[in-house]
Amino acid sequence: MNLVEKILAPRYEAHAHCDLFCGTYDPAQAAIEADSCLKIVKKYHDSDDEVFRARAIFIKEERAELVKQHLWILWTDFFEPKHVEEFPGLHDLFWRATKAAGAAKKSMSVEAQQEMIDLIGEVAEVFWATDKAKGAGVYPPS
Amino acid sequence: MNLVEKILAPRYEAHAHCDLFCGTYDPAQAAIEADSCLKIVKKYHDSDDEVFRARAIFIKEERAELVKQHLWILWTDFFEPKHVEEFPGLHDLFWRATKAAGAAKKSMSVEAQQEMIDLIGEVAEVFWATDKAKGAGVYPPS
Amino acid sequence: MNLVEKILAPRYEAHAHCDLFCGTYDPAQAAIEADSCLKIVKKYHDSDDEVFRARAIFIKEERAELVKQHLWILWTDFFEPKHVEEFPGLHDLFWRATKAAGAAKKSMSVEAQQEMIDLIGEVAEVFWATDKAKGAGVYPPS
Amino acid sequence: MNLVEKILAPRYEAHAHCDLFCGTYDPAQAAIEADSCLKIVKKYHDSDDEVFRARAIFIKEERAELVKQHLWILWTDFFEPKHVEEFPGLHDLFWRATKAAGAAKKSMSVEAQQEMIDLIGEVAEVFWATDKAKGAGVYPPS
Amino acid sequence: MNLVEKILAPRYEAHAHCDLFCGTYDPAQAAIEADSCLKIVKKYHDSDDEVFRARAIFIKEERAELVKQHLWILWTDFFEPKHVEEFPGLHDLFWRATKAAGAAKKSMSVEAQQEMIDLIGEVAEVFWATDKAKGAGVYPPS
Amino acid sequence: MNLVEKILAPRYEAHAHCDLFCGTYDPAQAAIEADSCLKIVKKYHDSDDEVFRARAIFIKEERAELVKQHLWILWTDFFEPKHVEEFPGLHDLFWRATKAAGAAKKSMSVEAQQEMIDLIGEVAEVFWATDKAKGAGVYPPS
Repeated sequence: MNLVEKILAPRYEAHAHCDLFCGTYDPAQAAIEADSCLKIVKKYHDSDDEVFRARAIFIKEERAELVKQHLWILWTDFFEPKHVEEFPGLHDLFWRATKAAGAAKKSMSVEAQQEMIDLIGEVAEVFWATDKAKGAGVYPPS
Repeated sequence: MNLVEKILAPRYEAHAHCDLFCGTYDPAQAAIEADSCLKIVKKYHDSDDEVFRARAIFIKEERAELVKQHLWILWTDFFEPKHVEEFPGLHDLFWRATKAAGAAKKSMSVEAQQEMIDLIGEVAEVFWATDKAKGAGVYPPS
Repeated sequence: MNLVEKILAPRYEAHAHCDLFCGTYDPAQAAIEADSCLKIVKKYHDSDDEVFRARAIFIKEERAELVKQHLWILWTDFFEPKHVEEFPGLHDLFWRATKAAGAAKKSMSVEAQQEMIDLIGEVAEVFWATDKAKGAGVYPPS
Repeated sequence: MNLVEKILAPRYEAHAHCDLFCGTYDPAQAAIEADSCLKIVKKYHDSDDEVFRARAIFIKEERAELVKQHLWILWTDFFEPKHVEEFPGLHDLFWRATKAAGAAKKSMSVEAQQEMIDLIGEVAEVFWATDKAKGAGVYPPS
Repeated sequence: MNLVEKILAPRYEAHAHCDLFCGTYDPAQAAIEADSCLKIVKKYHDSDDEVFRARAIFIKEERAELVKQHLWILWTDFFEPKHVEEFPGLHDLFWRATKAAGAAKKSMSVEAQQEMIDLIGEVAEVFWATDKAKGAGVYPPS
Repeated sequence: MNLVEKILAPRYEAHAHCDLFCGTYDPAQAAIEADSCLKIVKKYHDSDDEVFRARAIFIKEERAELVKQHLWILWTDFFEPKHVEEFPGLHDLFWRATKAAGAAKKSMSVEAQQEMIDLIGEVAEVFWATDKAKGAGVYPPS
């Protein structure tokens, strides 16, 4: 397995997000946007430039909205009834995670962004623990 | 480092895509959409359901468009003049990659999708070879 | 109360959907799009015009996507922990409703559209039964 | 007619907004967004939180844009030449209503939002006075 | 005036389309999309490739939608009451032009596209005949 | 050639931007948005209205984003390998132009907007110098 295959393999073999059941899903999409939110908020606090701060507020808004979208899609489209039996707290986890993304959207506090990221981490853990994700690829690596 | 940190770490520490210079960039975004295109095309050929096939055509169109977007953002926003010196073929690589994404958008052939994926692989290789990406995180893992 | 007030009153006094907590939410938004899906599907079956049928497929796709969006927003943004205690099946209802919208998106069957509409009806019933909705306006009228 | 049917009936039986001629149109869509604008503006004036106020400005912008969209669609797609004969002021009403929505978009004044809402009320009155709307459903209820 | 200035001058000095009153408006935006629709329709009829034809249908749909958007913006945002006095048929012209764009959206006939283009031509003629447009630049050239 | 044909002819006969290869491309699309950015920035500096200034920041953001989009599409979709041979600096020109659009997006300086406009001018010059554009229409007029 060359470097590129190594880098991309986990995502190349897995999961669906387009409502066709193409089979490509990945919590990385929510995580990338959430990471962006956190960095934006940090830069916002480091800046005293009025324009930069205004832009930070509305760009973070868009990024947090994307987090909500990616999470909602995972919740409704990837997970199946058997997963709810397997992970009884699944609905509640996604509700808290999307609410945390909503809170992160409304706030410029680092804590709100971190809370969102932590909950995406919990979502990712459940996601990768399903047979549906595991069976699909080489990930997570041993 | 727990499982979640391990799963998400590569992306959590790196790169920007929001035009604020938040610092979050990741070729994974293009790769996830491209993978979706390939799977859609395969399912298209396995199906003889008129509605499914029609949906496959326009959903793949949207996914390939996202590939183009993610690649263009990497090209213009992540890479800097010093990278062009370091990787003289950079512009040409991105031109071929986005053209391949355009071709993948227009076609239901598996080869066109694979060509796009291969070129994203090359982009990812260059991306992760930059100090900007490497310095930013723990990735690629040794 | 004049005619216009009568027509619009239920919606004018109530509920929020913009993530600012403006306070405007209304299951009517999902219901209008779902109704559109049903009508599109019926016209699709009544037509033998290739172009019309192709358009019906992708326009219905967009409308059903909007249904999912409106439902997700209600679920995450309108409802609060106390409502989950009050309506223990809330999460499951929204999961089935958004899954039904996904199924309606994928299918040109009248039944799939009706199933989505029925579940939006259940969502609306819960929505209007909350104090949060009731307290907000004159609706439902006696 | 049960509660759900009562709640949703007016909208379930009526009107089109998707350019397929699906037949689903409803001034409620513009009214819901306009109501949101008004509430956002009120909350803006009640707040002295810089971030909240910045968000209020651009979220209201999006909501007022949606008002314009919904009104334009009604004007071009729902109404027919016979309606212009029946309501000679139709074009002018929509022009003033969309201009009012543009003004509401630009301003944080309560009056500008109310002016937009009042004109949507007039639009709704004309809409529900057409045979096309009336014939389509049980609405307005006696 | 060098070549570039000559090419771009008419548009560089003129008109607004962003609801800020930035002052940049240009019927060229609608005309470019409408031209695209016409060419798509012609290629559709020249092709017997199922995928190409499906793509032609939904891409033309998006382009015709953009025509409607650009026309609506001109109508509501560029024109002022004094223009309605000056051009009494203004509202009706825009209504017919946006209806023609809706018809062009629904149809793969060349005639429907040409009808849309012709009406945009009439809109452009009225637009460039206003003092607001004329005073703004060097256009139309003598 | 009547006035309307004269006004619209250059754009009516030319170039493609929809990924179907419809054949309609025009640097005017980028130029119109860039011009809007410049005017927004000028009005921003002339105003001391907090709401107007906040709106100017995020509306200019959207317009500059559209500039990037239009330029990227020209680069990837209109130009072909033979053009790169003919204009060896093509890739670098587009890279600088899209980077300038990114800089214009981030800044409220008039200079940043002008730099973007100047580079679009250079792009237009190369565009109109190709046989592909020239052969397509009557433009540029003698």
